Amino acid sequence: MATGEFDLIGQYFTDRSVPRDDVITGIGDDCAILSVPAGKQLVVTTDTMVSGIHFLSDANPADIAHKLVAVNISDIAAMGGQPAWASLALTLPSFDSAWLSAFSDSLHRQLHRYGVSLIGGDTTKGNMTLTLTLQGFVEHGKALPRHGAKTGDLIYCSGSIGDANAGLKLLIDANNRTDLHPENSDEALLTKNDKDYLIARHQRPTARVSTGQALVGIANSCIDLSDGLASDLKHILNASSRVCGVALSANIELSALPLSTALQTYVSKALWPQYALAGGDDYELLFTVSPEHKTQLEEVMAAHYLPYTHIGEIVSAGQSEQIEVEKIEQQINYFNDKQLTTLALQGWDHFQ
Amino acid sequence: MATGEFDLIGQYFTDRSVPRDDVITGIGDDCAILSVPAGKQLVVTTDTMVSGIHFLSDANPADIAHKLVAVNISDIAAMGGQPAWASLALTLPSFDSAWLSAFSDSLHRQLHRYGVSLIGGDTTKGNMTLTLTLQGFVEHGKALPRHGAKTGDLIYCSGSIGDANAGLKLLIDANNRTDLHPENSDEALLTKNDKDYLIARHQRPTARVSTGQALVGIANSCIDLSDGLASDLKHILNASSRVCGVALSANIELSALPLSTALQTYVSKALWPQYALAGGDDYELLFTVSPEHKTQLEEVMAAHYLPYTHIGEIVSAGQSEQIEVEKIEQQINYFNDKQLTTLALQGWDHFQ
Repeated sequence: MATGEFDLIGQYFTDRSVPRDDVITGIGDDCAILSVPAGKQLVVTTDTMVSGIHFLSDANPADIAHKLVAVNISDIAAMGGQPAWASLALTLPSFDSAWLSAFSDSLHRQLHRYGVSLIGGDTTKGNMTLTLTLQGFVEHGKALPRHGAKTGDLIYCSGSIGDANAGLKLLIDANNRTDLHPENSDEALLTKNDKDYLIARHQRPTARVSTGQALVGIANSCIDLSDGLASDLKHILNASSRVCGVALSANIELSALPLSTALQTYVSKALWPQYALAGGDDYELLFTVSPEHKTQLEEVMAAHYLPYTHIGEIVSAGQSEQIEVEKIEQQINYFNDKQLTTLALQGWDHFQ
Repeated sequence: MATGEFDLIGQYFTDRSVPRDDVITGIGDDCAILSVPAGKQLVVTTDTMVSGIHFLSDANPADIAHKLVAVNISDIAAMGGQPAWASLALTLPSFDSAWLSAFSDSLHRQLHRYGVSLIGGDTTKGNMTLTLTLQGFVEHGKALPRHGAKTGDLIYCSGSIGDANAGLKLLIDANNRTDLHPENSDEALLTKNDKDYLIARHQRPTARVSTGQALVGIANSCIDLSDGLASDLKHILNASSRVCGVALSANIELSALPLSTALQTYVSKALWPQYALAGGDDYELLFTVSPEHKTQLEEVMAAHYLPYTHIGEIVSAGQSEQIEVEKIEQQINYFNDKQLTTLALQGWDHFQ
């Protein structure tokens, strides 16, 4: 491959960016020059996707671009932010115009959907590795942190969970790869629509930007579901325990978990918690709200037609006077129809 | 490699960051939260380094980290900016605590040197690929662009050029790899100090932050020397020609090029232009200044003890009324003691 050819990669990404007044200079100088609106703080996130680790090595480039944008914007959404600017670092093994064309079309479509300008990046040769850095705005002091959960908070999540994992399992089975979970799931029960829905939930997630913004001033804590609810809830418990000096736990009601009918059809009931709590890649928002803000939450979510479900409560596990908060293994107590139950969740280790 | 082990990578990068008042939340939430000072614009750049392409696969991790920071900060310097925040996307083939320890020590040392906070990033498994996104500030409307060169501008560069390429050649020869340039260069003539100096110029470049800031309000255009002066000057000519509607060329005086004594000792005289103009990786600044600002430039550079050299002039190659500016192959005219001369420069294609 000639270097000259490789230099052409840039042509797929310039001159197609969302125009924004706050982008003074975009692609084409040593740096982009940007204006942050008065009264706003900046929120910044970086995510990398590696071929064979975060997506199957034969994945559709349009799907890869879609997901790369979504997972990054999801982090902005989890702060209650408005996404604005993206920088793309693209490492590719070769110059493949069909791949680049499909990837860049999808990337630009996604960025336009969220109103985000591509402001710069880098293209290099190597194993396929894609890093996107996304920047957005929050009102000064209004970002939704992980660490704000308090004893008594109600725990909610947006949309439905577990679908992305089910979609991945369908894809892996279709590729005749080893079964993700040893127990049975039955593809034959699914309609084509259900199947497409689950696969799309894995390949083409939607970042919950409107939900995050609706929660500003209402939620005490928020995180996006990338690793799976059980794991991401522990991030909230751990960060919040440190801040409030009280070791926090969570009570989660399994029968309340929001599951799509497609997932309920596809996966046997015993496995629903596995998919919903350990599946990962859902990019829904998990958040906690003080009981006194419950009515306000219900009103704003209804006004914007945003789906969400009450799934549990934050409880106190002990005082910091007696125990070292940071050394506590934060606990999640699972209930099934209000009966305390034990769960053995399998970890989810990408494609290994 | 267990995933659990891989998760530990984060420990090498958290809690060692430069404290800054404008970092409201750093590593540890979905996004960093940042405040841009009033009256400032943001400048943002992203650079990726891939093992075997941008550095030898057995390169010292401390050198890799040093260079990764320097090349990114150099882009901020070229805008006249003040670096502030960095996001690191680290893709590594395995968990190697010795490598991580040396890499992260050097990274933090470099970031502290420039006063930059590490605000976030991502760690993933895959072929070694390192992407740094750097953000900094410029006074509103004061950034140094590539596109501001005008007919009659004096052309300058900071420091000395060609050293990094000579250092790389020394390294490659030491590794018994093929000769970078077929013509002779003589390592035996070098003192150990000279050799160390040239290798350090390749492995541990310094970003010219003070020089860039001194040029704010004085230089019409500026770029950092990453590809080599001949190539980077064309970026200035091309961008500036589009903006001013006049096809610009440059006259460069070869005898004026700032060469270190180490380079002059190591490389035979016939090859000096090859190293100085096509070598790349120098991370000096190339900039143009109107003649009426010459005295002001001399004063500010002297006041800050900043080395720089006058190497040529911007000239007009034709009017846009007659010719389509974008289709002109921008020309650089090389002079040797004021005699027009021809040069055949070899391109520089990383390690291929």
